[in-house]
Amino acid sequence: MPRTADTASFKFNHTMIRVKDPKPSLEFYQNVLGMELLSEKRFETFTLYFLAFNHSGRDLSADEKEKSRFTREGVLELTHNHGTESDPKFEGYANGNTDPGKGFGHIAIAVDDVEKACERFEKLGVQFKKKPSEGKMRHIAFILDPDGYWIEIVPGSLTL
Amino acid sequence: MPRTADTASFKFNHTMIRVKDPKPSLEFYQNVLGMELLSEKRFETFTLYFLAFNHSGRDLSADEKEKSRFTREGVLELTHNHGTESDPKFEGYANGNTDPGKGFGHIAIAVDDVEKACERFEKLGVQFKKKPSEGKMRHIAFILDPDGYWIEIVPGSLTL
Repeated sequence: MPRTADTASFKFNHTMIRVKDPKPSLEFYQNVLGMELLSEKRFETFTLYFLAFNHSGRDLSADEKEKSRFTREGVLELTHNHGTESDPKFEGYANGNTDPGKGFGHIAIAVDDVEKACERFEKLGVQFKKKPSEGKMRHIAFILDPDGYWIEIVPGSLTL
Repeated sequence: MPRTADTASFKFNHTMIRVKDPKPSLEFYQNVLGMELLSEKRFETFTLYFLAFNHSGRDLSADEKEKSRFTREGVLELTHNHGTESDPKFEGYANGNTDPGKGFGHIAIAVDDVEKACERFEKLGVQFKKKPSEGKMRHIAFILDPDGYWIEIVPGSLTL
């Protein structure tokens, strides 16, 4: 189906998930997965964090990061509603994969070597939903982020 | 924070959501939003549909589509569990934004002209969660996909 002028400018810019505590989440998405923080927007009751992989091969300026927040694909937006991180009554967020009404499934990170990536995740203490050696699908894995959201690890150089 | 060799190959490949009936969903993501179907994988009890915007400026071959499914960013994976589309007892999927446990928020499409994009959505009969003229945030909108998932429409050429 040809893309029409009506939608020629459209990009799949970002996916937003809520997080209980930005500290372990930022640690996870930056240090474990290697995303860069593009922008942090603090409002009265919540703060938004925009992250993405830097594919440019160089350091981005603050201005480039801020601008790319809405002008590229592959951005992850984390929403932190202030207070959830220290509220003993807060029960955590649904990861989308449990009933009733499970809907959201996961996000996926493509990597060049799933085995190697997973060995590193294991060393970093990341929790697994499914290791590459488990189940039927031996070439993929599922890890969990600090809120329990599923992250599929797929071979990005797979020849199909 | 510099990107290390450990994560240098990583890409934010896709976001997966479940859909009740692939027919209106494919119609929506292809015709309303302008994504292209990269790949369709039928299994015994479910079918996966991978979609993305074609930014190449040309038609992609079937092989390129299939390959790009795991090697690019900005892919949307729709999972259809067979039978939900005709099961009167199926109550639909949670869009992630209702209690209890709301977690997943939305996906976002960046467009060059939010007003113009929304006029077209309106003509196509798309449901709005928030029109650009409503609420405080006048430069963005939220539309709903056939399952009720929120899709934020953001200005992709925004100068910040």
